[in-house]
Amino acid sequence: MNTKTTILTGDRPTGPLHLGHYVGSLRQRVALQQDYQQFVLVADLQGLTDNGSNPQKIRDNIPEVLADYLAAGIDPDLTTICLQSALPALAELTMLYMNIVTVARVERNPTVKNEIAQKGFARSLPAGFLVYPISQAADITAFKAEVVPVGDDQLPMIEQTNEIVHKMNSLLPAPVLRHCKAMLSDTSRLPGVDGNAKMSKSLGNTLHLSASEETIHRAVSAMYTDPNHLKVSDPGQVEGNVVFTYLDAFHADKAKVAAMKAQYQQGGLGDRACKNELEVCLQELIAPMRERRATYIQDKSQLMAMLKNGSERAHEITQATLKEVKQGLGVPVF
Amino acid sequence: MNTKTTILTGDRPTGPLHLGHYVGSLRQRVALQQDYQQFVLVADLQGLTDNGSNPQKIRDNIPEVLADYLAAGIDPDLTTICLQSALPALAELTMLYMNIVTVARVERNPTVKNEIAQKGFARSLPAGFLVYPISQAADITAFKAEVVPVGDDQLPMIEQTNEIVHKMNSLLPAPVLRHCKAMLSDTSRLPGVDGNAKMSKSLGNTLHLSASEETIHRAVSAMYTDPNHLKVSDPGQVEGNVVFTYLDAFHADKAKVAAMKAQYQQGGLGDRACKNELEVCLQELIAPMRERRATYIQDKSQLMAMLKNGSERAHEITQATLKEVKQGLGVPVF
Repeated sequence: MNTKTTILTGDRPTGPLHLGHYVGSLRQRVALQQDYQQFVLVADLQGLTDNGSNPQKIRDNIPEVLADYLAAGIDPDLTTICLQSALPALAELTMLYMNIVTVARVERNPTVKNEIAQKGFARSLPAGFLVYPISQAADITAFKAEVVPVGDDQLPMIEQTNEIVHKMNSLLPAPVLRHCKAMLSDTSRLPGVDGNAKMSKSLGNTLHLSASEETIHRAVSAMYTDPNHLKVSDPGQVEGNVVFTYLDAFHADKAKVAAMKAQYQQGGLGDRACKNELEVCLQELIAPMRERRATYIQDKSQLMAMLKNGSERAHEITQATLKEVKQGLGVPVF
Repeated sequence: MNTKTTILTGDRPTGPLHLGHYVGSLRQRVALQQDYQQFVLVADLQGLTDNGSNPQKIRDNIPEVLADYLAAGIDPDLTTICLQSALPALAELTMLYMNIVTVARVERNPTVKNEIAQKGFARSLPAGFLVYPISQAADITAFKAEVVPVGDDQLPMIEQTNEIVHKMNSLLPAPVLRHCKAMLSDTSRLPGVDGNAKMSKSLGNTLHLSASEETIHRAVSAMYTDPNHLKVSDPGQVEGNVVFTYLDAFHADKAKVAAMKAQYQQGGLGDRACKNELEVCLQELIAPMRERRATYIQDKSQLMAMLKNGSERAHEITQATLKEVKQGLGVPVF
């Protein structure tokens, strides 16, 4: 019997993954897959919640995301990679949970509120987007995940999931669902290469795992530093200086980075030298991922076969949870 | 190949069925099952939308409703009787449709608005209740039903379903979903035996298909007539006179009822005589249903086996629709 703690993570397949995902989640998943029973959910249905009229975007990005996973080092023998739409139990649990969550409660969810505002939905808000915390609770509980890695902006989702767990368990003769805990990443969100707090494809300030040597070079060269640091001898600021933020996130030698920061603040360390150091580090990080990724993406049917395989395993697990919930509620199970 | 037109109807299993259901739908289904490919959906999930905290009520009423169906003459060899919760395609289609329907649109649905007001939900409205037009559209379209028998209060649901059909088909390379038409019952809604426009268990003004001879006698005796019709020789009103409404709904001899009405309006026909005529008619209608029902309800496991059987057939059909929709959207189908 598997006694490892279950962890669920995932991504909406809305585009290839980038360094922000690498720092925020991919790197962590690679580290966690040895010690946890890890599931990674390719959330294609959640991808459709705000791409309902452009389903091709979601379809096309599924193999891209799979190639990113493998390139980053996620091992399908250790991590179950599965597709949300291939798991009917998730939709069925969502339907059941929707009856015990009020509209007022989801409207009050701070994560949903923010995202609605960000996406400028107003009156055109799709019903699926409003109920997506409920769908997320279905995902988490279907796998009986105990740990869910999230950014701090997603904490209200975990809180809402646990409310649903509590309420649903109270309706059952014996508890079936498991409470979950957030696992906060120790790296804060990686800014875009232009210094914008949000890294996103639409802003053109990302570096993908497939970025070429030249793309990396240009991105680092153009990177935002301290606009007042004009001469090498000038003292410079490291706070808000994207080059140092990236060095903190990616450089293996923390002592060296600390020494560079001290020298930069004092004066005497030029932007060019810092950028060279960062570029070497990023080139070394990305090159092997880029190469692996190029191989994987050539055979999309093999990537999809891997996804099918993981989905079959996930189907068994999520069906078992659904069956327990239904039996507890007295819903006939044929 | 089956060339019969497909018709979908159903009931929420929230209580045994009564004469209102008999007049409004059961009788019609028995007549239609010869000429249509008829599906009757036991909508247990929709029953939970406003009974989320009392699932036992839904569970207990499933065999009651099945017994009513058979007692009324629905033939499982001609009509496919199936369980909503046993058909994952319905939940999955609901999830897909929720992305192309705005919250504003479901809030504007007059049927939903009325029912929210009737049930007094206000801020405690469950999310599942708000999205139930979308779930109903999933039901109808999963079966590719072309005809849906409804009361006129449900016409906005059909309109919303057709909007979803139109929108979803426009996202697919070729249309998959079928538009549907409402089939309005030619009998208007049967009032309660007390004259209340709404017949409902909570008002205690129903007659169930299992009503005993004595219960029928008492109900007819206490039935609301014309309060100003004091003496047999007085002219009486037939409008709003529940005895005549029931005679219209149930008496086989329309000419006889017309003659009775004329005599009643003129004066010379007493309430007692009218009630006797009605009682004979209701006793004759209900007695065989009551007897059949008593036999069926004794073997709940056989009723559930019949439901399982119908659900398996319905599963094939609804999965086929789901697969077509997914393939059209480019959602991977493993």
